[in-house]
Amino acid sequence: MKTVKVGLLGIGNVGSGTFQILSMNRNSIAEAAGKPVCVAGVLARNKNKKRDIDIDPDIISDDPDCILKSDEIDIVVEALGGIEPATTFMINAMKNGKHVVTANKAAVAANYDKLLKTASENGVQFKFEASVGGGIPILNAVSTVLRGNEFTEIMGIVNGTTNYILTKMTEEGLPYETALKSAQEKGFAEADPTADVEGIDVANKLTILMALAFGVYVKPEEIPTLGISRITEKDIAEARANGEKIKLIAHAKKENGKLQYSVKPMRLAENHPLAGVSNEFNAIFITGNAVGELMFYGRGAGPLPTGSAVVGDIIEISKTITY
Amino acid sequence: MKTVKVGLLGIGNVGSGTFQILSMNRNSIAEAAGKPVCVAGVLARNKNKKRDIDIDPDIISDDPDCILKSDEIDIVVEALGGIEPATTFMINAMKNGKHVVTANKAAVAANYDKLLKTASENGVQFKFEASVGGGIPILNAVSTVLRGNEFTEIMGIVNGTTNYILTKMTEEGLPYETALKSAQEKGFAEADPTADVEGIDVANKLTILMALAFGVYVKPEEIPTLGISRITEKDIAEARANGEKIKLIAHAKKENGKLQYSVKPMRLAENHPLAGVSNEFNAIFITGNAVGELMFYGRGAGPLPTGSAVVGDIIEISKTITY
Repeated sequence: MKTVKVGLLGIGNVGSGTFQILSMNRNSIAEAAGKPVCVAGVLARNKNKKRDIDIDPDIISDDPDCILKSDEIDIVVEALGGIEPATTFMINAMKNGKHVVTANKAAVAANYDKLLKTASENGVQFKFEASVGGGIPILNAVSTVLRGNEFTEIMGIVNGTTNYILTKMTEEGLPYETALKSAQEKGFAEADPTADVEGIDVANKLTILMALAFGVYVKPEEIPTLGISRITEKDIAEARANGEKIKLIAHAKKENGKLQYSVKPMRLAENHPLAGVSNEFNAIFITGNAVGELMFYGRGAGPLPTGSAVVGDIIEISKTITY
Repeated sequence: MKTVKVGLLGIGNVGSGTFQILSMNRNSIAEAAGKPVCVAGVLARNKNKKRDIDIDPDIISDDPDCILKSDEIDIVVEALGGIEPATTFMINAMKNGKHVVTANKAAVAANYDKLLKTASENGVQFKFEASVGGGIPILNAVSTVLRGNEFTEIMGIVNGTTNYILTKMTEEGLPYETALKSAQEKGFAEADPTADVEGIDVANKLTILMALAFGVYVKPEEIPTLGISRITEKDIAEARANGEKIKLIAHAKKENGKLQYSVKPMRLAENHPLAGVSNEFNAIFITGNAVGELMFYGRGAGPLPTGSAVVGDIIEISKTITY
């Protein structure tokens, strides 16, 4: 039996999580995929950097073509983040006959049609479960087992950084700046938190969710987007006095055949299922015309949760690979 | 393009929900399946019974062989419930080359190996998403996109009747008998509620969950099972005084390589994600060694939610049918 060979573009959070899972769950993954799966190439800037995970230095290269043009790689995992060069790398991989898996919401949201078209033209699969909700398997559900439904509404808490900040503000009465600093200290927020706190990351994810659930592609920059940086202690207190919690919500709703969408802080009744989603957790609440209300809850970030979704995609593709 | 033809065994709750969805979402289902899907045969005791849904009387028959042996039926949906004759019908359908979809947890739990083996021997697919958690797509997630994980624990609220009764007891301080009567009046509990309130239905579902998540088949009658009929107002009050809620939990946990399992009422801290699952709703809380904690929440019963899962299975099978 031949082994499925994976090439990792990038060995940061997502790349190292993926590598770790493919190693620690090697046997059960081989059983699920019907064949062994191994990492045969890793793109990294610094071959000799000290890493927490044990990678054979011989498979590390700083030349993307060692993976993109390799004859032996079957699946390329793009784990660089950012729109470019990630998109170009993915397209080149597809043109070289490689299946592509990514967690990169910015690249998928910006180049959705182009990436899907290139995959289709080259007869390869393109999967991006990890791009929304990290380890939460929402995209697969919406694209497969829930397809008996026509969806009417999606509400998502899909950014752990902002949910952590809002939780701190709500539960500990902290002002925004102090809560942000706490998030940065815990590694939940970056030094420049703009993409998270201004809702840009959430808009990328809403673009992807809407494309799959409603079959409509809306550019992230066309989604009315408001972040959380102007939320005050007074806003939080007013919501609480009203029995509500403030959450940053990716929202899309179909009314009279027209799709309405926004990213903005919303006041949710305390007994709304999304109101109980705290700290860095994510959840997606979705309504279908048959199934009614569904919610998916879990870890939206982190090397292993995000790696779980990447590996899930790798397994699904591996099942279909025949030599 | 040929149409996929579905035969429904039974036109009660599940059968009529399935029929309704295939009709109301006809176009989006055809798009998802890559071909039209229609109901070509219905098994019913009484051809002329007045029904809420509009079925062409010409496709209704009281002879199961009209579906099981039909040359035109591709997929048989078993929606009769109970172990027999449902199991025999499913096996005969498979032997006649038909794919089978069911929502029948009792039959799947009792005859798991036999049903899977018969499907495999006859080169047909056998799917049963609706058998656990109704419309919640837990089985597909556990069998596909989450396979990068080794699972360590499952906790499920998978019976709407008992969750409704416990919610009434908790929120309104009702005694068990009064809450049961309320559930019966609302149609959430049957006249003979034994299978629900004694945990038998939950044990069937735990058998199926464990088979898929842990690859271990445990007969439902071998699962230590305790229902809710002996829970008193005092138990509920004691739990509340302790900041806890009582829920009937299907529980499986892997410790030191050994699988422990039970169905029993458990006291959960009020901030446990499952503690917020009220009334007739279901939820499954699952832990994987990569993804961490995940929860799936939704409607565990009812014609349309259960039909959603049945139709999801029909679509997945239809995608693979070529003529």
